[in-house]
Amino acid sequence: MSSIQDHLFDTEFLDQSLQYLGEVLNLQVTIQDSDGQAVLTQGQPGGRASRFYPFSFSQDIGGLTCTAADQEALAACEPHIAYCLAALNSQLAREEELRETSEEMLALSSQLNFLSKVARKIIGVEDLEECYQIILQEISLAINADQSLIHTRGRWDDEVEVRLNITREEEAALLECDCLRRRQDTGHPIICTLDNGKSLLYLPIREKDNRISGRMFFLRPANQRQFTAYEKKFVGIIENIISPTFETLRLYDSLQDLYLNTVKALAAAIDAKDEYTHGHSFRVAKYAVTIGRQLMLSGKELNDLEIAAYMHDLGKIGISESILGKPGKLTNEEFFHIQQHPVFTDKILQPIHLANHIIQGAIQHHERLDGTGYPMGLSGPEISLFGRIIAVADVFDALTSKRPYRDAMPVETALKILCNDVDKQFDRNVVLALLQALQDNVPGSEFSEVSNTLKFDALQNLNLFLKELTEFVATPPAGRGRTV
Amino acid sequence: MSSIQDHLFDTEFLDQSLQYLGEVLNLQVTIQDSDGQAVLTQGQPGGRASRFYPFSFSQDIGGLTCTAADQEALAACEPHIAYCLAALNSQLAREEELRETSEEMLALSSQLNFLSKVARKIIGVEDLEECYQIILQEISLAINADQSLIHTRGRWDDEVEVRLNITREEEAALLECDCLRRRQDTGHPIICTLDNGKSLLYLPIREKDNRISGRMFFLRPANQRQFTAYEKKFVGIIENIISPTFETLRLYDSLQDLYLNTVKALAAAIDAKDEYTHGHSFRVAKYAVTIGRQLMLSGKELNDLEIAAYMHDLGKIGISESILGKPGKLTNEEFFHIQQHPVFTDKILQPIHLANHIIQGAIQHHERLDGTGYPMGLSGPEISLFGRIIAVADVFDALTSKRPYRDAMPVETALKILCNDVDKQFDRNVVLALLQALQDNVPGSEFSEVSNTLKFDALQNLNLFLKELTEFVATPPAGRGRTV
Ligand SMILES: [Fe+2]
Ligand SMILES: [Fe+2]
Repeated sequence: MSSIQDHLFDTEFLDQSLQYLGEVLNLQVTIQDSDGQAVLTQGQPGGRASRFYPFSFSQDIGGLTCTAADQEALAACEPHIAYCLAALNSQLAREEELRETSEEMLALSSQLNFLSKVARKIIGVEDLEECYQIILQEISLAINADQSLIHTRGRWDDEVEVRLNITREEEAALLECDCLRRRQDTGHPIICTLDNGKSLLYLPIREKDNRISGRMFFLRPANQRQFTAYEKKFVGIIENIISPTFETLRLYDSLQDLYLNTVKALAAAIDAKDEYTHGHSFRVAKYAVTIGRQLMLSGKELNDLEIAAYMHDLGKIGISESILGKPGKLTNEEFFHIQQHPVFTDKILQPIHLANHIIQGAIQHHERLDGTGYPMGLSGPEISLFGRIIAVADVFDALTSKRPYRDAMPVETALKILCNDVDKQFDRNVVLALLQALQDNVPGSEFSEVSNTLKFDALQNLNLFLKELTEFVATPPAGRGRTV
Repeated sequence: MSSIQDHLFDTEFLDQSLQYLGEVLNLQVTIQDSDGQAVLTQGQPGGRASRFYPFSFSQDIGGLTCTAADQEALAACEPHIAYCLAALNSQLAREEELRETSEEMLALSSQLNFLSKVARKIIGVEDLEECYQIILQEISLAINADQSLIHTRGRWDDEVEVRLNITREEEAALLECDCLRRRQDTGHPIICTLDNGKSLLYLPIREKDNRISGRMFFLRPANQRQFTAYEKKFVGIIENIISPTFETLRLYDSLQDLYLNTVKALAAAIDAKDEYTHGHSFRVAKYAVTIGRQLMLSGKELNDLEIAAYMHDLGKIGISESILGKPGKLTNEEFFHIQQHPVFTDKILQPIHLANHIIQGAIQHHERLDGTGYPMGLSGPEISLFGRIIAVADVFDALTSKRPYRDAMPVETALKILCNDVDKQFDRNVVLALLQALQDNVPGSEFSEVSNTLKFDALQNLNLFLKELTEFVATPPAGRGRTV
């Protein structure tokens, strides 16, 4: 039960008043907290009370008032006591106002602080889902939710879904829950308690044109209090103010996707000119990203690597078809001309503001560690990581694809060739990553999208073979024989 | 001068106190506002005062206090009077607190409202400079500034500058002003008064890594008060919370630029395979955008049109060089094969999430209004605006460029050919827009970037010629002869 003291920020004036009542007006003052009653008793402390001035403490108006029954008694009492009660009353009313205002101010201030904090966290985040994840985490932390979910528009108006600590089963049950089904159509935020006792906060996400384009869900454990109207308002304000960042990020992600797909489509068109390179860029991109993922590259780096891989033979636009498609042996000049395709790629890409590591990756795929590659004859550290990865991906696809003069090689043969040239032509870690990717090959991976066209010598023993080969490559050159 | 009443939200308790002082304590109460003094006088109203209890009103502590000289007098006075003064004092202190808290709350609440309002305005805005302009306008309105300026990072870390009501001369003077030169290095926001009396608010814009990457300036007229510390803080908070949107928009704009330039570079590489089409896509894109601007297309539409124009001959990747570069007359089959290049363009672009009007623009450039075009033989309304524009741009460039079998035509001849086929092959408004663009041709326009290679028959009479031609095209077919 709250006491009068609890309701005063500063008890100084109360003390002053009690002292005045006791010493000047000679009243014995007792404050009985248990039922919110205070009693003023006239008479000496400890002595028998001669008069009582009971007054009740009203939480509603936040002050001290006399109960109706005692109005008469109070009217008849000393005017000094009446004034003192009025002063206490007025003071308490002000303090209540101050408390309410301060609480509201703290709430507003915490919203602004929250927005500043979130702004610092999401600035420069380039991935839409990562950004949603940060927002879910931060809001959950702020409103003490332990599970959350967002459904919203993704790149191409498809649905993006980000979930925190919520299983698909729980999600399905959530979307089917009664209170949502009944009230979701109103388009307003909803707070309700689910059958399992958890408190749910639901917020529709609106577009500029007021159309609902997404939904946010927050859950609080069953043993905790329900979400409040304030928390509902808080989430709404945050969502509203943060939405331009998401809208822009959605545009950005869409354009990133468009960029990759445009480069991919052009690479496919160039590959398609020669029946033997049909699908080559696509496979090289998949192999490169598979290797990159094994090498723990970040999502952004993998995107860049994929673009570089799709661009690696772009320069073939500049090589005449008569040479590219020549069935027989090439003359030295023709061969030199073909070797210039990375130079053409460079010429096409240089005027563009494309990140340098992407250009390097695209134009170095024929360079070799020992300097025997082309067109620059770069060696060792002069060759970038992207260049090393695309080189291995390119050779692996070339070996395992059909050529006019030979059949497609089985994976084992291709891998032996790569492994034998580790450190001489190819980067050891890149080759090891390819071997690991073949061992980790699971349905749904990038690798599985292309590996179904590969031929194998002996599928049963593939893992044993890969392990042996991995061991061979992982052993320093001094400790091993010349070839596999 | 402020009075005691001014400092009370609610004068009810003051009235109550004055009544108590007058009726119960028998004091004559006078509140003298002019010097902030209140005087309590003991004695009958109107009668001669027997005792004085002067107390001063202290604005600093927001309450009523006795001046030092009167402490003694007060101590000796009636304890009821002392209590009453204490009650008024305490009340006034609380009210002062409440006022301050309320003001702070209003400020916070207006910041949140401002953020919500700005969020609604910038959501979906795709152009970085437009977005900065909105922000400058909104902040200026909120802090009552009439001139503003932002310098910040643009697409490729180049500087973007957006100015509102500020001339370049004023800007130069501003950047050279003393208070900025002296204090800008501290990296803190600055408020100062310029020599011309205007108040300046300067805010450095910081990156995630705390590096200063931009600057905002707001000016208030000389006849108005200086900017306040609160306004400085306000602008800082807004900038901080809005910055992720700008960072993302910067990425988006950079990528848009990259996309356009990549398509442009590839188009140039394809054009370069044939000496007669060298630079063709670049010129077609410039002509198309010039026409589009005359037709009052929006910035976004012009961007899309430019991309479509750069893509219009992309499908030539799929046409063999032997046919493309064949010097003599083509066989019917060869001609049919060449006519398939828009089909190849379509095949390349269809799998991509490219806006349909861009694809339509690219693949319809050989369609003609009367249905005599290829590859679809579309007619009239089946041909999109972008298709009509790129068709005219494509033919205009083909006619004014050198071919193996003829020289480049003078502009006049090319225009006559286009004008004669208005409504039959070409869109009347599109041709009129091209004629207008030639008349409006000024240095610095898109058109001037390419028009310097054009040949003219008689430059002196060009405008007269263009006017006559415009009149001819603008006249409905019934009213004109068969040819120009
Ligand atoms: Fe290559
Ligand atoms: Fe064409």
